[in-house]
Amino acid sequence: MTIPLVIPLPGNEVLAGHLCAFGNVELGKLEMRAFPDQETYLRFPESPSDRNVVLVDTLADPNGKILPLLFAARTARELGARRVGLLAPYLGYMRQDMRFHPGEAVTSRHFASLISADFDWLITIDPHLHRYRALEEIYTIPARALHAAPLLAAWIGRNVVRPFLIGPDAESEQWVSGIAKACGADYCVLRKERLGDRDVRIAAEGLRLPDETQPIMVDDVISSGRTMEEAVRVAAGRGRKPLALAVHGIFAENADARIMAAGAIRLVTANTIPHSSNEIDIAPLLVPELAAMF
Amino acid sequence: MTIPLVIPLPGNEVLAGHLCAFGNVELGKLEMRAFPDQETYLRFPESPSDRNVVLVDTLADPNGKILPLLFAARTARELGARRVGLLAPYLGYMRQDMRFHPGEAVTSRHFASLISADFDWLITIDPHLHRYRALEEIYTIPARALHAAPLLAAWIGRNVVRPFLIGPDAESEQWVSGIAKACGADYCVLRKERLGDRDVRIAAEGLRLPDETQPIMVDDVISSGRTMEEAVRVAAGRGRKPLALAVHGIFAENADARIMAAGAIRLVTANTIPHSSNEIDIAPLLVPELAAMF
Repeated sequence: MTIPLVIPLPGNEVLAGHLCAFGNVELGKLEMRAFPDQETYLRFPESPSDRNVVLVDTLADPNGKILPLLFAARTARELGARRVGLLAPYLGYMRQDMRFHPGEAVTSRHFASLISADFDWLITIDPHLHRYRALEEIYTIPARALHAAPLLAAWIGRNVVRPFLIGPDAESEQWVSGIAKACGADYCVLRKERLGDRDVRIAAEGLRLPDETQPIMVDDVISSGRTMEEAVRVAAGRGRKPLALAVHGIFAENADARIMAAGAIRLVTANTIPHSSNEIDIAPLLVPELAAMF
Repeated sequence: MTIPLVIPLPGNEVLAGHLCAFGNVELGKLEMRAFPDQETYLRFPESPSDRNVVLVDTLADPNGKILPLLFAARTARELGARRVGLLAPYLGYMRQDMRFHPGEAVTSRHFASLISADFDWLITIDPHLHRYRALEEIYTIPARALHAAPLLAAWIGRNVVRPFLIGPDAESEQWVSGIAKACGADYCVLRKERLGDRDVRIAAEGLRLPDETQPIMVDDVISSGRTMEEAVRVAAGRGRKPLALAVHGIFAENADARIMAAGAIRLVTANTIPHSSNEIDIAPLLVPELAAMF
């Protein structure tokens, strides 16, 4: 059997390269450019005929990415690919998981249905599962959610002396406690109140800061960054500058700069979304899963 | 029977308003905004239940528009809309209509299939039909292509004394001659050589410029504007500044400014894509068709 072709959409070349360095997969190419009118030109310079294909496309800021991605999947199939899988290290449109107000679009379901129609399977890392308990509630294809927590714990173990973990809210407690346990650290969680898309209040009373520890603020995703920014500010306000650590760094509206300005000593993320803070490589987590999907 | 609800996606409010001023249709609303992470929030503030719905969305620069559009169509249906039609005055992804080189995506087919899956019908104006002879070759829903030529002819008749029409290439001859006939003008066509996306050569020898006429360069679409720019330059070089007239003005890469700088005395388009040059209202063309689709 031929080894899978791993083909990055633009912006995903680094991760695809790591996968090929670690695993028994071959790096494929996709030629893509914009016509003057901004429509996408797309071509497979090497035939995917009779190959298993993995398209790699992290789906942060997904609106402009979906057409090229679906075009690529359909074209690979037309050109004779056996199976076409999607590796989306960050999966978009997981937040609107119910109709909170009459007339709202439940975009998570629509997005899942579009992806499910054109791919044979999906692999992602730590998707936002809140009301849905599993991706399969909305994705009708095999959909694997992998967990970066062990990689975060390993990174802390290698890089931080006497770490003390701080989660942003009660919901995060189980996740944070797991990481803390894995790296032999203590932890606490804060109390968060969300007042709007960009307005978050962090209750400082919940914050313990044991002496001679290095505080680490951890979260699964930094989007607008308001939660992380406020949490960092609370700790820094007590003279204890924390490290800010997350799986996914979207960093909307210069969140990275705001978090540093709030008093973080360092910002560290996994490479699910390319960013200068990427220090945790998810490739070793993905490699065995890729093999298992075909 | 209740009258159709015409609901503009953002940027299409002006045309939707004209339709409601001219026709027996009701203006509906869609609430849409971006979350900080650039995902789309979308809500129908008034119920489309049991209504016939027309979503208005011109599909120039379509990549970022497709998800909100499909979300809106699916949500309208979930909320009980009877039929959901798409009015896309400009229809994107009509150019790549075959696999010119091995491995290329035939995006016109993929795009048509996505639209066809979520809408009951499509109305558009002067789509780029080259190798396809009709939209139904790729759209599996009723798809009407309306023609703005009569509106262009009427505009010329009302606004230009002694017009002389000039088409950009041999392919345009039939279309240009129709407009010329309808406004009682003479015409000629140039010879165009396309060397690349942005590189066009216009053979000046073909250009007649009868005395005391006002030259009008006409084209169906101005995209990168290189064709129109070169054609205008050729006429202006002979001391006869032309008027530049088109159905669709995409005006990529400041094409509008380049066309004026090349020597056009005026730039006029239909309002299929919102732009300051919109002087030809397509609403009167659309109104009877909207009624016919339900």
